[in-house]
Amino acid sequence: MFEQYVEKPARWLEADGAEAAVVVSSRVRLARNIAGHQYPDRADSDVHCRVKEFIQEALNSSGLLDEGTLYESETVSELDRSFLIERHLVSPEFMRAKTNRAIYISKDESVSIMINEEDHLRIQSFRSGLEIKSAMENAEKIDSELGEKLEYDYTNDFGFLTSCPTNIGTGLRASALIHLPGLVLTNEIDAVISQITKLGLAVRGFYGEGTDVLGNLFQISNQTTLGRNEEDIIGSLEEVSRQLIGHEDNARTTLIRDAGEEIKDKIWRAYGILKHARVLSSDEAMNLLSAVRLGVAMGILDMLPMRLVNEIMLLIQPAHLQKLINEQLSPSERDSKRAKLVRHKFADRTLE
Amino acid sequence: MFEQYVEKPARWLEADGAEAAVVVSSRVRLARNIAGHQYPDRADSDVHCRVKEFIQEALNSSGLLDEGTLYESETVSELDRSFLIERHLVSPEFMRAKTNRAIYISKDESVSIMINEEDHLRIQSFRSGLEIKSAMENAEKIDSELGEKLEYDYTNDFGFLTSCPTNIGTGLRASALIHLPGLVLTNEIDAVISQITKLGLAVRGFYGEGTDVLGNLFQISNQTTLGRNEEDIIGSLEEVSRQLIGHEDNARTTLIRDAGEEIKDKIWRAYGILKHARVLSSDEAMNLLSAVRLGVAMGILDMLPMRLVNEIMLLIQPAHLQKLINEQLSPSERDSKRAKLVRHKFADRTLE
Repeated sequence: MFEQYVEKPARWLEADGAEAAVVVSSRVRLARNIAGHQYPDRADSDVHCRVKEFIQEALNSSGLLDEGTLYESETVSELDRSFLIERHLVSPEFMRAKTNRAIYISKDESVSIMINEEDHLRIQSFRSGLEIKSAMENAEKIDSELGEKLEYDYTNDFGFLTSCPTNIGTGLRASALIHLPGLVLTNEIDAVISQITKLGLAVRGFYGEGTDVLGNLFQISNQTTLGRNEEDIIGSLEEVSRQLIGHEDNARTTLIRDAGEEIKDKIWRAYGILKHARVLSSDEAMNLLSAVRLGVAMGILDMLPMRLVNEIMLLIQPAHLQKLINEQLSPSERDSKRAKLVRHKFADRTLE
Repeated sequence: MFEQYVEKPARWLEADGAEAAVVVSSRVRLARNIAGHQYPDRADSDVHCRVKEFIQEALNSSGLLDEGTLYESETVSELDRSFLIERHLVSPEFMRAKTNRAIYISKDESVSIMINEEDHLRIQSFRSGLEIKSAMENAEKIDSELGEKLEYDYTNDFGFLTSCPTNIGTGLRASALIHLPGLVLTNEIDAVISQITKLGLAVRGFYGEGTDVLGNLFQISNQTTLGRNEEDIIGSLEEVSRQLIGHEDNARTTLIRDAGEEIKDKIWRAYGILKHARVLSSDEAMNLLSAVRLGVAMGILDMLPMRLVNEIMLLIQPAHLQKLINEQLSPSERDSKRAKLVRHKFADRTLE
C-alpha cells in the first residue's frame, strides 16, 4: 500500500514555500466532532462505524474522494502505519488503535483527514515553507465543504467542542517545522525555546508531541485555542516563526563571522561522510543531514537542491527505508541500506 | 632550494618495491669515520672543514657529484632543514647544528650522505617496499667507492669505529617503515612490539629515534652492530619484517571476517572526510590517510594508487606544505591549506 508515495518526497518537503531555508513546512489541523455522537474514546464500535460512514458520504458528495483515497485502519499494515507517521500524515496516537479508524489522504498529500482519532475528524493541511495562512485557507475550505454535509458539535459560547479541552473553541492547531542548527551550534536554543514557551507556544520534536528533536528540526505550535479566534492564533504563530527565523539568521551570520572555517569544515565533512559511509544510524544521518541542510541554506553546498536534502531526511526513516528496499530489515541491515540509499541519492552531484 | 623535489614524491614512497601493501620503505645507513681525525662532536671547526673537503674530493672523483648535489649546512634554511627531515634524507639531530655540516643527495633521492653528523660520514640508501638487501647493496657500492679515496677508521678487532659504541663494528643500521593499522585496530600492536623488542630490534616513530608514531607507521631497526656481520643484521631484520607482515595480514583478515562492514565504513568515511574537509590537522590527516592506505591495500579503495596515498602522507607535513604554498603559514593556515591540498590530490578519482 502507498507505493505511489514511496519514491517521491511528501508535498511539504518540496522546499518551494516562503522561508524554505529555515522553515521546512507548515501544518494546520482542525478538530471537529459530529453532533449527537459519543466521542471516539468513549464510543463503542457501532458509533465508530456510523461516524465513519457519515464522513465517507460527506467526502464522497463533496468530491474529495475524487482527489484522494480513504483507507480503513484495518487494511493498513504495521509497516504502513509507521510509514504514514514518518510522512506526518497521521499522528503516532492515531495509529496505535488498529480498528474503526480511517484516514483520508489527498493525491498530492497536501490534505489528510484522520477519522476517529481523539475527535471524529481531524482535518490536516500541509504546506512547504512558512505558509501557515495558505495552509489555513485550504483547511477551512475542506472544513466548509464537509460542514455542509455534517452537523458539527458547536455552541455559541464555546465554539467547536472537542475531546480534549485544549482544543475547544477553534479546534485549531497550527504548527511550523523549523530547522534551527544555527541556534543549536551557538548554544542559544534553550534560551530561545524558553522564550517561545512563555509566549504560550509549544516546542515539540520531529513527529510532534512527546517525540525527540531529530536533525535540529523543531515543531512550534499553539497550545490553546479557547477564547481566541483563528486569525489571532495563525497570526501569532506566524509572528513568532518570523522572530525565530530572525534569531536563526543572526546565529548563522555570527557563526560564519566568528568560526567560518570551522562551520564550512563541519558542513563539508558531514557531506563527505554521507557520500561515503557504509553504515549510518538514523540519528547520525539526521544530524549529518542537518549540517548539510545548513550548508545548502548558507550557499556553501550550492550544488545541492534543498528539496533533495529534505527528501533524504524523510527517506532514511525506518519505515520508508523498508518500503524502498521492499523487505523487513534488522536494525543493522537498515544502517547499511540507509548508507547505500544516501550515497545513491547524493551521487552525480558533480559540481562539488 | 630543493624545488626540484617538492612536487614529486620521494623515491622511497613510490610503492613499487616488494610487500608495498604493508612495508612503505627500507633504509640502510652506514656510519664511517676518517682515520686520524677527531670525531665531529669533539672536533673543532678546522677539523670539520678538512673532513668536509676530503669527502667532497672523494665524492667528486668517484663520480657521485655527477649523480647528485652536495649542500653546505650554512646554505640550508630553517624551512629546508625541516623539509629534508620530512623526506627522511637527514636525521633531526643532523639539522640541529647549523654550521660545518653538509649533505649529499642523489638526484633520485635513493642516496643521501650526511657529513659531520655524529660520525664523519653517514651513507644512507633508500628503497620502496621491503628491499633491505637491495638498499644494502647500493649502500655498500657507495661505501666501496668512497673507501677507495678515504682511509676509514677500522681495526681488525672491532671493525669500523664510530662515535657511539652501539654503531661500532659494521656501522650498519637497517630499518623498515611498516604500516600496521590492522594490528592497531585489533589491539595486538603492544604485544607484537614487545615481542620484537625482545628479539633485539628497536621500534621507533615516523621520523626515527625519539619521534612519535604517525598514521600507524612504525620504523623497525636493528639495535646493535658489534660482533655481528652485515648479512646477519640484514637477514634478521628481513625475517622479523616478514613475520610482522604475516601478523598484519592476519589482523586484516580477522577484521574483514569479524567486522567487515565497520572496517569498510571506517575506510570510506576516512576517504570522504579527506575529500571534503576544509580544516585538517597533521595528526588527523595522517590517521585518516592510514585508514585510506589500509583501504587501498585491502582492495576496498581500488581506484586509488598506493603511491598517491604515500605521496600525500609526505606532502601534508608542515615543511612540505609551506614549500608547496611557497609562504610562511601559521598552524591554523596550515590546517586549511593542508585540507585544500588533500582535496586537490584526491580530486578526479572518479571510479569511487
